[in-house]
Amino acid sequence: MNWSPDAASLSWVLTAIESLATLAFALSGLVAAARKRLDAVGVCVVAGLTAFGGGTLRDVLLDRRPFFWVEHANWLWVLLALTVGAMAFMRARHLSPTLRAAQWPDALGLGLFTANGTQIALDQGMPAIVAVLMGMITAVFGGVLRDIVCNDIPSAFSDHRPYAVCAFLGGWTLVGALALDMPQGLALVLAIAVATGLRGVAMATDFTLPQWRGRDPNGD
Amino acid sequence: MNWSPDAASLSWVLTAIESLATLAFALSGLVAAARKRLDAVGVCVVAGLTAFGGGTLRDVLLDRRPFFWVEHANWLWVLLALTVGAMAFMRARHLSPTLRAAQWPDALGLGLFTANGTQIALDQGMPAIVAVLMGMITAVFGGVLRDIVCNDIPSAFSDHRPYAVCAFLGGWTLVGALALDMPQGLALVLAIAVATGLRGVAMATDFTLPQWRGRDPNGD
Amino acid sequence: MNWSPDAASLSWVLTAIESLATLAFALSGLVAAARKRLDAVGVCVVAGLTAFGGGTLRDVLLDRRPFFWVEHANWLWVLLALTVGAMAFMRARHLSPTLRAAQWPDALGLGLFTANGTQIALDQGMPAIVAVLMGMITAVFGGVLRDIVCNDIPSAFSDHRPYAVCAFLGGWTLVGALALDMPQGLALVLAIAVATGLRGVAMATDFTLPQWRGRDPNGD
Repeated sequence: MNWSPDAASLSWVLTAIESLATLAFALSGLVAAARKRLDAVGVCVVAGLTAFGGGTLRDVLLDRRPFFWVEHANWLWVLLALTVGAMAFMRARHLSPTLRAAQWPDALGLGLFTANGTQIALDQGMPAIVAVLMGMITAVFGGVLRDIVCNDIPSAFSDHRPYAVCAFLGGWTLVGALALDMPQGLALVLAIAVATGLRGVAMATDFTLPQWRGRDPNGD
Repeated sequence: MNWSPDAASLSWVLTAIESLATLAFALSGLVAAARKRLDAVGVCVVAGLTAFGGGTLRDVLLDRRPFFWVEHANWLWVLLALTVGAMAFMRARHLSPTLRAAQWPDALGLGLFTANGTQIALDQGMPAIVAVLMGMITAVFGGVLRDIVCNDIPSAFSDHRPYAVCAFLGGWTLVGALALDMPQGLALVLAIAVATGLRGVAMATDFTLPQWRGRDPNGD
Repeated sequence: MNWSPDAASLSWVLTAIESLATLAFALSGLVAAARKRLDAVGVCVVAGLTAFGGGTLRDVLLDRRPFFWVEHANWLWVLLALTVGAMAFMRARHLSPTLRAAQWPDALGLGLFTANGTQIALDQGMPAIVAVLMGMITAVFGGVLRDIVCNDIPSAFSDHRPYAVCAFLGGWTLVGALALDMPQGLALVLAIAVATGLRGVAMATDFTLPQWRGRDPNGD
């Protein structure tokens, strides 16, 4: 494998990463919507928002066009087929989606989108902290939209497990690796591994983030 | 009536459609906010978000400027007057808005915005599936914003009646009619009729969308 | 003090106002997130959304780049430090944030963002009503995002105290003062004073906005 791609190959690699991340998040949205017993349209919309929301917000903020789902419009058909297929399959098999089942594609998507978003922002000449933030937004915003539409407090902010923090550290890994003149491809793989890996460790170990502890949060 | 308008007339027709749709959605937002007993400002904001939200998101995604409410800033005054008038009238007459009363302007706005959004995206050279999606976004997002701000699960995704599906079919009607070389004006009218008509049928017949049915949605 | 700054000084003044407003809103977001017992990341995100949300939406709507937090990326570090510092301090001192404590920075931020947003939109040649609306959006949207993410009905729309109305009147004060050929600096100060002052009066006196009063809001 060539670890130092030229601009054209890098663009191809980033598209491949975004495709995979989109698929992973679509699955996670599918499961979340099913658990809320939304109807067929709701399932499709929530899966779509989760899959495309982060990348679209990144592109709006960076003023980048066309969007991923405009340039690769076929992905919209894939999403539609996936939703219809999953609903038919679930109904036939009397299977029920579990919360746990959604966590693994979600962790994978987290790492992929972090690396992808951070790299794209760096390519546009953003300062390192802004690039890392763009990576976090790409990785986290889809899930936040999913939770807002399902009328939950976004789990990224409230479940007390590291989530955005994994994206944050993954983004800095990419920035650091590139600063150390590591080959581009290796830096991306490293960033994905750090973000997804840390999230996996967090899920496996029940490590929790520090929480605000005041005397009486309901007092006035 | 001239069914094949030139570019200038088409732009005029689209503006007229957007004005009518804006008015219809403002009414529906007004009723929803009143039912939640929001204060005067809340009523005005919810009516405004419902009316202008869909078109504004469409324009942000398509990178189109100026927005409808910047080019036609007088509509902001109309909205303000409408809210104040409705609140004064309601208070005087001890009338109460009903849920059912909001559904008809909503169905009309749905059809109008679907045709308008799909046509505008086609004019910008978007692929058919993206244009239909833009039509759906224009038609549905205002109501989604209304429900998010009122802290409900958006009814477009969860009430199990076809809503976004009507916009989806209306958008494809427009795409199909234009592909069959139908005159522009006729295609728009047809798309509006399909989307609004299907929504009307859905409301009248209690037809429901397939829902996700697993074994135990709360199990883990 | 020079009340009629040239373009360069005006830009500097607007940046200073935006910095101060950002800080004020970050504090208010910090308190709100703490009261909801979000974790460290949630506190940081909510503080950030509250601080940067309004200005970012204004810039997306006006198609202005770079964003405040891209041009002044160091503010992201300030926000991070502020959150970590506040959490450490709160935990050490067993202090608890009160709702009332959040209201004063919030009122200050309201006035500052109103003047800033209205002025920036006027500079871009927007009509007066649109400029005032942009001022309101800048001032109010951060708090709305904060409440949506915390899963509340946005208090700006439902607490029955004037909030957006203060921004509305502050914005018109700026437009009016400039129409009367008042010096630029004086007009900005006046607008800030009106918006923040009115909000202060509203908090002190429990003045409430008219609310929708129908016969039976839950009837159908």
